[in-house]
Amino acid sequence: MKLVKTAKEMQGMANQSRKNGEIICLVPTMGALHDGHVGLITEAKKRADVTVVSIFINPTQFGRNEDLNNYPMNLDTDLAKIDDLRVDVVFNPDIGEIYPESFQTYVVVEELQGFLCGIFRPGHFRGVATVVLKLFNIVKPHIALFGEKDYQQLKIIQRMVNDLNLEVEIVGFPTVRDENGLALSSRNAYLSAEERIRAASISRALCEIKKVFDTGIRRANTIIEAGEKKLKDVGIENIDYLEICDPETLRPKELAEDGDLVAVAVRLGAARLIDNTLL
Amino acid sequence: MKLVKTAKEMQGMANQSRKNGEIICLVPTMGALHDGHVGLITEAKKRADVTVVSIFINPTQFGRNEDLNNYPMNLDTDLAKIDDLRVDVVFNPDIGEIYPESFQTYVVVEELQGFLCGIFRPGHFRGVATVVLKLFNIVKPHIALFGEKDYQQLKIIQRMVNDLNLEVEIVGFPTVRDENGLALSSRNAYLSAEERIRAASISRALCEIKKVFDTGIRRANTIIEAGEKKLKDVGIENIDYLEICDPETLRPKELAEDGDLVAVAVRLGAARLIDNTLL
Repeated sequence: MKLVKTAKEMQGMANQSRKNGEIICLVPTMGALHDGHVGLITEAKKRADVTVVSIFINPTQFGRNEDLNNYPMNLDTDLAKIDDLRVDVVFNPDIGEIYPESFQTYVVVEELQGFLCGIFRPGHFRGVATVVLKLFNIVKPHIALFGEKDYQQLKIIQRMVNDLNLEVEIVGFPTVRDENGLALSSRNAYLSAEERIRAASISRALCEIKKVFDTGIRRANTIIEAGEKKLKDVGIENIDYLEICDPETLRPKELAEDGDLVAVAVRLGAARLIDNTLL
Repeated sequence: MKLVKTAKEMQGMANQSRKNGEIICLVPTMGALHDGHVGLITEAKKRADVTVVSIFINPTQFGRNEDLNNYPMNLDTDLAKIDDLRVDVVFNPDIGEIYPESFQTYVVVEELQGFLCGIFRPGHFRGVATVVLKLFNIVKPHIALFGEKDYQQLKIIQRMVNDLNLEVEIVGFPTVRDENGLALSSRNAYLSAEERIRAASISRALCEIKKVFDTGIRRANTIIEAGEKKLKDVGIENIDYLEICDPETLRPKELAEDGDLVAVAVRLGAARLIDNTLL
């Protein structure tokens, strides 16, 4: 495994790999790797000649009152995990390498960012789109993998790739869950043992919504209420959203249909947790 | 000369050229080619194995009350000129090819767009940066050439290239002028013969400013007044700006220094005309 710190070195390696006809797969991460990341990396390795994992806690995707300064970080543990997986390259730049002084160029996917997490985290997806575009230009992947837990992020990146004529195949990878159904997230580290058990109700709420939908009920409000009850039953009162949306435009729907997205974000203790499923 | 209409075909050709180790030079244009464009293309040919000229009137860089619908267009004349210059490829996509339905991703160079033309043409440079990034991703040039007449555009594109880690060398090409010193522009076509003669005072105003600066005067306001007089003498009253700025940040200056930018934009008849020089 090669550890690369500068954009220039990474681009040089990428150009050489491309010249050799090798397929480059990128798994972008902010570190604090869990089994969801392991799934992404394992999938990347199946598709790649050269697998690159980036580790970069991207400041521009955090709001002022968010958890940038507390975000879990353990580079040595991450590198050991990645080494076990026999990844070819880890790209781990410093902040100044990605955002030099006088940096001022941002990418905005205007409509898709106006829903769900975009409402509660203004500027978040601008930061995500910008850093992902930069990573694509630095790592030059043929394929990049993203977790489906971050559904809105996945859609925004797919849209950006289409709109900007990037020749990168975007692959979504199913959410990995713990034994209670809680979607794995680096932010689960903020939960106490007791909160972690209650947090399992987030995915239960999604299951309940699916169940109600499967009985034939179509009014979104009615279906959502059943899910909300599951959250409130365990004292999760701080719900940013629990919505049924069009899976492509992310617009909220009044009547649910097969294939619609159910997306949820709650605050529990020090964590903001998201999850989703498709009807 | 090959005429290419789709992004996919252009990308295929660019990928093949790169595989062959050929240097691709791009000259992006909105058509209505004049001797300024000829200069850019001639310079591109010196540096390239494959020279690509794009012709695309980019709607996202026009404001609502601007001249999108009147912008001069004469594809046959343009293609004949380009053919004479023995250009390899003309990329001339339709609007729907560049901006498909549901297009919504824009690139913004935030600080540099806050000065000069950016104030008078809100959204203009967002449109420019977006289409240039798309053209870079489609044509995959090693080198791209831009006229120095559009100084702010050149700086914004250079900033975008650095900020987004694009491996494209941006080359500025000196402004080409008519026999009276008027900077060549497709928009000069809007001028009557009489207006065209008066428009020559724009570059005379810049020369006058240089002259005053060379006498040792440093107060920007004093220097600018001398230039303004040249414009008003020929009845050019509609001055968007006539400013001395930092050549990198574009911030207006109170005291002029060697190397500073003098930039001007005026409205004359149906045309908005810009020009600039360095002290």
